[in-house]
Amino acid sequence: MNAFQKLSAANKSGKFICVGLDTDPKKLPEHLLSSENPVVEFNKKIIETTKDSAAAYKLNLAFYESEGIKGLNNLEETLSLIPDDVLTIADGKRGDIGNTSAMYARSIFDHFKFDASTLNPYMGKDSLEPFLSYSDRLNFILVLTSNPGSADFQKLQLKSGEMLYQNVIKNIHSWNKSYNCGIVFGATNFSDLSENLSLIGDLPLLIPGVGAQGGSLEEITKLLFSNKKYSFLINVSRGIIQKSVGEDFAEAANVELQNLNEVVAQSLI
Amino acid sequence: MNAFQKLSAANKSGKFICVGLDTDPKKLPEHLLSSENPVVEFNKKIIETTKDSAAAYKLNLAFYESEGIKGLNNLEETLSLIPDDVLTIADGKRGDIGNTSAMYARSIFDHFKFDASTLNPYMGKDSLEPFLSYSDRLNFILVLTSNPGSADFQKLQLKSGEMLYQNVIKNIHSWNKSYNCGIVFGATNFSDLSENLSLIGDLPLLIPGVGAQGGSLEEITKLLFSNKKYSFLINVSRGIIQKSVGEDFAEAANVELQNLNEVVAQSLI
Repeated sequence: MNAFQKLSAANKSGKFICVGLDTDPKKLPEHLLSSENPVVEFNKKIIETTKDSAAAYKLNLAFYESEGIKGLNNLEETLSLIPDDVLTIADGKRGDIGNTSAMYARSIFDHFKFDASTLNPYMGKDSLEPFLSYSDRLNFILVLTSNPGSADFQKLQLKSGEMLYQNVIKNIHSWNKSYNCGIVFGATNFSDLSENLSLIGDLPLLIPGVGAQGGSLEEITKLLFSNKKYSFLINVSRGIIQKSVGEDFAEAANVELQNLNEVVAQSLI
Repeated sequence: MNAFQKLSAANKSGKFICVGLDTDPKKLPEHLLSSENPVVEFNKKIIETTKDSAAAYKLNLAFYESEGIKGLNNLEETLSLIPDDVLTIADGKRGDIGNTSAMYARSIFDHFKFDASTLNPYMGKDSLEPFLSYSDRLNFILVLTSNPGSADFQKLQLKSGEMLYQNVIKNIHSWNKSYNCGIVFGATNFSDLSENLSLIGDLPLLIPGVGAQGGSLEEITKLLFSNKKYSFLINVSRGIIQKSVGEDFAEAANVELQNLNEVVAQSLI
């Protein structure tokens, strides 16, 4: 299955929650610290309990890079534990000039074999083209992010009347020749999401910002379903993987994932 | 010496050329391929011949990450070969939500111990704050890049009349409490640079785009010196390190660096 097929299969079976494996080596349950590789042990247990109910796994590259070589080993090992039919997203928000962007794409898609990536559009079309040339992968491009600073530039009003992030969406449509583009839209910007659904059209959505950052899962899913949007992922990281810091952390993560899936299911009715 | 002092010392001694160690494992001189570690061997020889004349070394993280764990080993080894008094720049163009950005900063500044970084401003102030909290380092923030796609968003006209990149510069001034901000401004945008010198003020400049990308070193340095701008770096990567692909690659790199330094010196007169 290619990336888009994995996403579709998950969504069609009612799975919309992406588990963010943003595993902070400094916030692991104490009983794991004596194991040979605490980060991988943690991820392994989380994947084991959640793999049947997770729509995707998003790995924020920063959390692995912060440990240098050991971290990259952990990234490789973690990826090998994720079932082949579950979408994997490299959250690196990359974007650079052409020959450099090609290097990042090679790292994420060829070396680590991720299904999908997140990209930063500030440097324009040619900075993303090496990623877009992989027609069997998915690229979620930053549009309106979930952090307070999203207002600094993304919401600046252009002379044309639209906001910068709206102009980014328009451009993404024109870049989407291989149907391998999606957008990142923060759940904390609910009214913007509501007002831009027709502009977003059929671009798959990756929505962070639910949980620790304050967005409401119920509001978002009700909005999307009632507007016949069925191609999206709601990412939850800390809200799932840090639900418990005790020995029951993996079970607690799965209980929370089931709770979130239940909220989604209720919104579908 | 902190990062700003290293930059000042280089500039005061007439060094303005930053050598970009964007070492492509697929474009190494053939005679190195049999050595134990071709990338490090290549970088070592380049550093040995250029270290007295280079104002700084910029390492584009993509070129190292593309080789996974081996690449990070190469990055660490290369950094250990650069003299302590020469500025090192991690070119990763990072930018993410707060807790993630903190992880990237930890990786670049604490783990690898780079003096400086490049950052992408699209996600706003709080996405850069973890980097800005390191008062002894330097952060070159993308303003107007050297690639064709810089026109896609960076040059969009805002309702206020200014272009997006000009708004970014204004914001950087307000973020520069610790005098640890600089800006990235592509040499290919010469007229924009010329028109925005007073807006840029005393922010140190990192200028890519000379050489392979088409910007003119002479034009840029004459413009800056004639406007009393003495705090900047002109980055040249391929133009120096790929000057020769023969056994003389390191000597050829240094000859080219001397030529570029001579162009700079002539502009100073």
